[in-house]
Amino acid sequence: MTKKKNNAISPTRTENYPEWYQQVVKSAELAETSAVRGCMVIKPWGYALWENIQKFLDSKLKETGHVNAYFPLFIPKSYLEKEAEHVDGFAKECAVVTHHRLEEDSKGGLIPAGELEEPLVVRPTSETIIGETYSKWVQSYRDLPILINQWANVVRWEMRTRLFLRTTEFLWQEGHTAHETQEEALDETYKIIRLYKNFLEEYMAIPIIIGEKTENERFPGAMKTLCIEAMMQDGKALQAGTSHFLGQNFSKASNIKFQNREGKNEFAWTTSWGVSTRLIGGLIMTHADDDGMIMPPKLSPNHVVIIPHFRDESYRNAINSYCNEIKMALSKETFGDRKISVLIDSRDINIGEKSWSWIKKGIPLRIEIGPKEIENQSLFVGIRDTMQKKSILKNDFTNNISEILEDIQNRMFEKANNFQKLNTKDIKNINDFNNFFNEKNSNGFAWCHFCGDSQLEKKISDDMGVTIRLLPINSSISDNDKCIFTGKKSIGRVLFARSY
Amino acid sequence: MTKKKNNAISPTRTENYPEWYQQVVKSAELAETSAVRGCMVIKPWGYALWENIQKFLDSKLKETGHVNAYFPLFIPKSYLEKEAEHVDGFAKECAVVTHHRLEEDSKGGLIPAGELEEPLVVRPTSETIIGETYSKWVQSYRDLPILINQWANVVRWEMRTRLFLRTTEFLWQEGHTAHETQEEALDETYKIIRLYKNFLEEYMAIPIIIGEKTENERFPGAMKTLCIEAMMQDGKALQAGTSHFLGQNFSKASNIKFQNREGKNEFAWTTSWGVSTRLIGGLIMTHADDDGMIMPPKLSPNHVVIIPHFRDESYRNAINSYCNEIKMALSKETFGDRKISVLIDSRDINIGEKSWSWIKKGIPLRIEIGPKEIENQSLFVGIRDTMQKKSILKNDFTNNISEILEDIQNRMFEKANNFQKLNTKDIKNINDFNNFFNEKNSNGFAWCHFCGDSQLEKKISDDMGVTIRLLPINSSISDNDKCIFTGKKSIGRVLFARSY
Repeated sequence: MTKKKNNAISPTRTENYPEWYQQVVKSAELAETSAVRGCMVIKPWGYALWENIQKFLDSKLKETGHVNAYFPLFIPKSYLEKEAEHVDGFAKECAVVTHHRLEEDSKGGLIPAGELEEPLVVRPTSETIIGETYSKWVQSYRDLPILINQWANVVRWEMRTRLFLRTTEFLWQEGHTAHETQEEALDETYKIIRLYKNFLEEYMAIPIIIGEKTENERFPGAMKTLCIEAMMQDGKALQAGTSHFLGQNFSKASNIKFQNREGKNEFAWTTSWGVSTRLIGGLIMTHADDDGMIMPPKLSPNHVVIIPHFRDESYRNAINSYCNEIKMALSKETFGDRKISVLIDSRDINIGEKSWSWIKKGIPLRIEIGPKEIENQSLFVGIRDTMQKKSILKNDFTNNISEILEDIQNRMFEKANNFQKLNTKDIKNINDFNNFFNEKNSNGFAWCHFCGDSQLEKKISDDMGVTIRLLPINSSISDNDKCIFTGKKSIGRVLFARSY
Repeated sequence: MTKKKNNAISPTRTENYPEWYQQVVKSAELAETSAVRGCMVIKPWGYALWENIQKFLDSKLKETGHVNAYFPLFIPKSYLEKEAEHVDGFAKECAVVTHHRLEEDSKGGLIPAGELEEPLVVRPTSETIIGETYSKWVQSYRDLPILINQWANVVRWEMRTRLFLRTTEFLWQEGHTAHETQEEALDETYKIIRLYKNFLEEYMAIPIIIGEKTENERFPGAMKTLCIEAMMQDGKALQAGTSHFLGQNFSKASNIKFQNREGKNEFAWTTSWGVSTRLIGGLIMTHADDDGMIMPPKLSPNHVVIIPHFRDESYRNAINSYCNEIKMALSKETFGDRKISVLIDSRDINIGEKSWSWIKKGIPLRIEIGPKEIENQSLFVGIRDTMQKKSILKNDFTNNISEILEDIQNRMFEKANNFQKLNTKDIKNINDFNNFFNEKNSNGFAWCHFCGDSQLEKKISDDMGVTIRLLPINSSISDNDKCIFTGKKSIGRVLFARSY
């Protein structure tokens, strides 16, 4: 493995991007497919990343007044049917529980038995089941707002799946809030999408564009869907999270009614919002390179791995104690809200293989220790994002670990941000638009004035596989701004891209 | 509500214990039944308790070398069938997914469609699906041990459900480990059951007896099931967690094979272990009283609530700033690993009602603040476990908050421990045994010598509803020790009790 002069991941991004992605997931030991169609196994290294995402996002949600709760996995079929658009959106891809036991048949095999009176759907999302509960909790405006989040698994039966990006079962958080007024619910919808943007930029080092989905792309049953979109390294867009203003659609379906300050009955205004394990797919496609995963230090399961080199057995004890000394010194330091997390990899395997296994896993810093390092009171450091290797005095490293990690985190964001800028274009006419998206490998983000015609939007999507990712939230348009396709008055500069 | 001179919970424990339990759960706002049969809604106060349980137990599991991962929700029917005892144990109570979409029928209603070739079972426990994955991960003894834990929801179709104690869906952690040798797997099984005992005693203030289940009560497919048993306030036993030594049963079923140090193929030795949201039921039945829940300070979502008394409006600002000052001072202090968590309840509702709502929720300390407290630089404190109320100088309180909470935690354990001792008896003959369990309300724990006859064990269970909760792990028996029922040689002093 040390012989690998070129790249640890084959194929590379330019050779075959989708296959490169699968290989990164595999060689970083983040996840694997399971024997259950479309369901993944999230392996310890991938799950530790998810735990860090959960931890920091959860604390941001709590700081903004949200609390966690837990609602049932199953949704009675009749609940799903209460909101017409909603059931249309999810009925085609849901796991249906029809029986509550297995029984031996005449041949000794097991068959489903105990048929349910009403089939249950494994939640694809929980608006309807949570709405049913809120309708019991809310009587007066004094019971509002309700600001609840849930960390849970959901199931959407997908025919074509890809690890993290699209799986039948995935993990997510889903917030469900109920408010006294439309304004307050709208505020919440916007507050959350900004919170998501901040979280992705600050912790995941993923630059984000916020906007609103067109009607075609809205969540089934929502009045307004806000989204965060990120550019992947192939220039395609990834929808990384959404926040929905549901108006009174779901409160009417679930009968969430309250007596307002004037003593009149009114339906509550609700929102829902979520991000999922898809974030991990986005993290990979933003940062990983042809040598594997690159973890942003703020979320990496560990910050530093120490690899002892026992070439000369007589140094074994000295090396071990020097490694422990470094670990101790680092463990006293912090980076952001976390203690520096260090591990020593003493596995009895080839050193090159060991080092590459950590490169592929994307740990921010690798330290190699041999007799020379003890003699010089130094470390040999490999920095994952730049792949730079250098010798550094021990104290210079341990005293500055926080700054070193901060630099990596910032560099990762800057690199992704520059990439996004470089591959984003203002487009002024149809020709440029066609050229931008028709050339081979010519993905990217295109901003252009658009008239808002849904039919046209659909046609562009059908013809070219390019969709409107979002309408900007605050767009100032003048009468001179015309749709580049129709010449009609523009509704604003919208973002076109191919997408995941 | 302030008028309630006697008790906040009706009925009381002595009046109707099962109904008292339901009322505590309800009035503490821990959970409620949902519209989905047997599934509960865990409300924010209950879920925050679960989050604390998760947090501290998770860190104990990680300290002992375990890592988290996530495996699929669904188990193919054929997997469940691989281990004969296992499928017998779970086939009768599982949710079966048979279809993957809903489709409109001729009347416009939705019916299950897209029938699956093989039905999927919603996991009742994950030995079989995780075993399938381990079989791919393990080739050599170098790949062992695998020490993985999963936090997840599971489903066992229960006909009679009770919030937290027995629900169709519940939350839990399930550890699944694979080892090179029988000895190592056995060590793990014992290590975990001791870890559970320590956690319950240290954090939940629940005194625990450790032991081994008889064959009748073993986990389906296990060679040995260890358990932690706790005494509830009605004298019944609650099985609060289990740790199973699975031998090679499941590794044979799932084909988890490895090349051992001698180069020969061998099946791995596996264990599994778990605790669930049932712990919350145990916490309630150990500590709650006729005024509602009592939270152990180490796990209580908040430690202190401050309730301002605005009787005289002219003091409003002064009271608010005094409350904030106290909150600030307390928030700087820690208790164990946690910062002191304080909230100010400024809701515009009746003071008595407010105070009682916190008593019923079981928050360890309530502080009431009015003009008199400002004047004296004091606090009026209500201590939940003793229901004592007293005035105390502000600084004496804030400087000693950690000790005050520690005292509560210790007192709760001592009280529960004394109760357990008081209601546990050494039984020497059948007459005493019958008297112990036949008298009305005469539950409790009975230790007595037993010959180990399964038929007899079953007869006692059928006749009296009393089961063997456990065999002690280390029992020294002499030849003179005879079974109190048969006079035959004793296998040890076993613990009999009625149970949940």
